[in-house]
Amino acid sequence: MSAPTKTLHELAAALAAGTTSSVKLVEDALARIESYRGRGGAAYREVDAESALQAAHAGDQARQAGYVPSVLAGLPVSIKDLFDIRGQVTKAGSIALNNAAPATQDAAVVARLRQAGAILLGRTNMSEFAFSGLGLNPHYGTPRAPHDEDRVAGGSSSGAAVSVALGMAAAALGTDTGGSVRIPSAFCNLTGFKPTAHRVPLDGALPLSSSLDSIGPLAVSVACCAAFDAAISGQALDARPADLRGLRLYVTRDFVCSDMDDDVAQAFEDALQKLSQAGAVIVPFGFRELRELPRINASGGLAAAEAWTWHRKLLQAQGTCYDHRVAQRIRRGAEQSATDYIEILAARERLRAVAAERLRDADAWLMPTVAIKPPLVASIERDDDAFFAANGMVLRNTSVINFLDGCAVSLPTGAPGIGLSVCGLRDQDARVLQVAASAQLHAFM
Amino acid sequence: MSAPTKTLHELAAALAAGTTSSVKLVEDALARIESYRGRGGAAYREVDAESALQAAHAGDQARQAGYVPSVLAGLPVSIKDLFDIRGQVTKAGSIALNNAAPATQDAAVVARLRQAGAILLGRTNMSEFAFSGLGLNPHYGTPRAPHDEDRVAGGSSSGAAVSVALGMAAAALGTDTGGSVRIPSAFCNLTGFKPTAHRVPLDGALPLSSSLDSIGPLAVSVACCAAFDAAISGQALDARPADLRGLRLYVTRDFVCSDMDDDVAQAFEDALQKLSQAGAVIVPFGFRELRELPRINASGGLAAAEAWTWHRKLLQAQGTCYDHRVAQRIRRGAEQSATDYIEILAARERLRAVAAERLRDADAWLMPTVAIKPPLVASIERDDDAFFAANGMVLRNTSVINFLDGCAVSLPTGAPGIGLSVCGLRDQDARVLQVAASAQLHAFM
Repeated sequence: MSAPTKTLHELAAALAAGTTSSVKLVEDALARIESYRGRGGAAYREVDAESALQAAHAGDQARQAGYVPSVLAGLPVSIKDLFDIRGQVTKAGSIALNNAAPATQDAAVVARLRQAGAILLGRTNMSEFAFSGLGLNPHYGTPRAPHDEDRVAGGSSSGAAVSVALGMAAAALGTDTGGSVRIPSAFCNLTGFKPTAHRVPLDGALPLSSSLDSIGPLAVSVACCAAFDAAISGQALDARPADLRGLRLYVTRDFVCSDMDDDVAQAFEDALQKLSQAGAVIVPFGFRELRELPRINASGGLAAAEAWTWHRKLLQAQGTCYDHRVAQRIRRGAEQSATDYIEILAARERLRAVAAERLRDADAWLMPTVAIKPPLVASIERDDDAFFAANGMVLRNTSVINFLDGCAVSLPTGAPGIGLSVCGLRDQDARVLQVAASAQLHAFM
Repeated sequence: MSAPTKTLHELAAALAAGTTSSVKLVEDALARIESYRGRGGAAYREVDAESALQAAHAGDQARQAGYVPSVLAGLPVSIKDLFDIRGQVTKAGSIALNNAAPATQDAAVVARLRQAGAILLGRTNMSEFAFSGLGLNPHYGTPRAPHDEDRVAGGSSSGAAVSVALGMAAAALGTDTGGSVRIPSAFCNLTGFKPTAHRVPLDGALPLSSSLDSIGPLAVSVACCAAFDAAISGQALDARPADLRGLRLYVTRDFVCSDMDDDVAQAFEDALQKLSQAGAVIVPFGFRELRELPRINASGGLAAAEAWTWHRKLLQAQGTCYDHRVAQRIRRGAEQSATDYIEILAARERLRAVAAERLRDADAWLMPTVAIKPPLVASIERDDDAFFAANGMVLRNTSVINFLDGCAVSLPTGAPGIGLSVCGLRDQDARVLQVAASAQLHAFM
C-alpha cells in the first residue's frame, strides 16, 4: 500500500483510477509483513502470500472486466486467527489446537469478505483464545503498540490492530467479547467498531463467550469500519457524517471515569471540549448501577462459564499447552453454578433496562475506550498480579457495552494510544456509526 | 351460568340478548363453587364473591350504557393462584408465602382481563409453585377429574380446569411451563392453549422457570381460547375454522407415542382417522432426536435451575412448609453447574433447528397431549416413586413444546380425560389456533 493511513475509499479510488493495482497493494503489504517480521514483529501468525497474490491478480482482471463487487474489492485484509478459513487450522493464538483438522469451510464472515472481493492476507496473532485485553501471547510473541514498542498493542485482536496501523493490511477482521476490537484500536490509534452482536453471524468463529462475542473491523476511519461492516453483516448502514450541532452526547462519570491515567483524563476532557465547540451538547448523566458490575461478575461472569463449557475437554487433554493465565481465567467457569449464571443474565437484563431508560434521549454515550494508557509489556509479562490488574482495568469500560449487548466505535483522539468510545445500545449501530463519523470529521481531523 | 359447556361467545350473545346478566352468571358460578366446596371440592383457594358481584353489577350497567369492551365483558373467569391481584397475597398453592405482603398491583394479564371486562371470581388451586403436572396439593386438597373423581384433574393448573369443567367459571387463566395448561385441559375434557411464551407478558406472575413459563387459557372451545388469548396477549389472532381438506398434519411416533395407555393410543388413532376422513393429510415424520430429551434434562433441566434460583432463600427460611416432593424437585437445581445449564440451552437451540427443518411443510404437528389416562389419586398420593414416575410421564409430551419454545392447543377427543394436541413452533400461534379450530369443528363435534 502506498501509505498506511489511506482509507478503504481512497485505496478503492486509486484502484479505480488505475494509479495502483491490487497486486501492487498486496505486494506492498507482504513486503511490510516480511520487513516487520524481520524486526521481530508478531502481527501475523500465518501469511498466505501465494494465494493472496493469486486473488489480487484475479481481482485486477475482474476490475478490468468491470466487475467490482464492493469498496473492499482488491484490498488486502487480515483475518484474526480464530476464524475458519477453508483448508487452514484455526488455532486462535494457541498451540493446543496444533493437531486439529483444517477447516472444511470458511467462517460466514470470511466467505462474505471473499464475496466482497477482499484479499485475505493471512491470520493475525491474538491473545490466546481471545481471553485477555492486553494481547500478550507466550507462543507467538506479543504485538507492540506502533507508537511505543515498549507497550502492548492491546488485545485480544492485537495482530489485527498492528496489521492495519503499520500498513500490513487495509483493514482487519477482529472479534470483541469484552473490548477486543476497541482496546487494540485505541492503543494503536485506529478506529474500531463493535457492532450489536447478533448483526454479524458467528458461524465458523471459535467462540469465547456465546452471550458476549461479536465480530467487527479495525480500520483507519469510521467510513472504513462502516464499509467493512456492510460486507460482513450483509446490511449496509448509513454512516455518512452529519452536523454535530445539537447532538446530545451523554457522559457519565460513574465507573468508566474512575481511576483514569492523567493523560487519558486529559484526552477525554479535550475530546469533550472539541465536540462541544463543534456544537454537540454534552449531557452529564448518572449511572451508579454500573458500579455493581464487579460484584455481578465476581464469579468470572458469562465469559468464564461459557469458555469453560467449550474448553473443558481441551483443557483436560492439552491443559499444559495453554497460557497459564488464560487457563486460570477459563477454569473459574468450572466453579460457577447454574444459579450464578442465571443471576448474571438477570442482572444483565436489569442493567439493560436501566441503560435504555437513562439514555432514552441520547444520540450517543461517550466514554474513554480504556481508562489507562497501553501498559508496558515488561511490567505485565513477568508478574501475574500486575497482569490481572492491568487486564481487568483495560477491559473495564469496553466490557460494559458487551454486557449491555450494545455497540460502540472507538475513535483515535489524537493523543497516542488513547481512544474515545461512541457507544449505543442494542441495534443503535447506524446511529453510533453516524455520530462517530461526524465526530471524526468535525472534531478529530 | 346456565350450563357449564357454553362457550364465551354463547354467553356473550345471551348477555347481549338480555336473556341473562353478568350478575346472574356470577351468582350461578358462586352457587356452584359453594356447592362444590360443600362436597369437599378443592377448585378455588380463595373466592372473591363480593367484589365479583360488584364488578358484575357494574358490568351490567356498562352494557346497558352501550359499553362492551370485549367478548369477555361481564363473564366470570378464574385466576390461577400464582398471579398477583392487587391487595391479595400471591400464594401459588403454597403455605410458605402466607406471611408475604399483598400485591400492590395486578399482574399484567390480570389488568388486561379487567380491561376486557372479565369478572374475577377468585384464585384457583394448583400444584404448589406450579412444579408438577398432576395437581396434587397437600395444603389445599387435590382437585379431581370431573368425569372420574378417583383420578387427578391434572396440573399444575388443576383448579383452573375444574373451575371451567364444572361451570364455576366461563374460562380460566392458567400457566404452562411443561404442560400445566394442556394436561389439566386434557384430563378435564377442555380446550387449553399454550401460546408462544413471549406473546403474553409474565409480569406479576410468580415464576417457575423463566425460560419455559407461558400464560394461557383453559376453556370450552378453541374460539374461547382465542378470545381469551386476544385479551391477555393484546394481539387478536384469526382463529376462525377453515377447511381441513389438504391440511398437512404431521405425526411422529418417536418419543411422544411410546408407552401409551391403550385407551390413549386408541383415542389418538381414532382422532387421526377422523381428521383424515375430514380431508386432512396425515404425514408421518421421524423425530428421533426427541429421545435425547431425558438425557438433556437429566440434571433437572432449565426448570430446576431457574426454580432453585428463585426459591433458594425461601426454601432456607420456610423449607419445612413446602410439599416435600416439590422441594425435592427444586433442590436438584442446587447441584447444577453453569455448564450444565449452558449445555441445556445449546441442546435447546439444536432441537429447535431440527424441528424447524423437519416441520417446514407442516400445517401443524399432532401428538397425544398426555400418553396416559389421568392417574388415580390414591396410587400416587401415598408413594413417592409412583408419583415421580407418573409426573414424568404426564409431562413428557407437553414439555417438548415448551422446550422448543413453541405453542399448542389441547383438544378434547371425546374419550374421557384424553386430549389431542395441535402443536406448532415459535410464533405459529395463529396457524395452530386455526388448525385446532378447524379440527374441533369438522372432526370432534
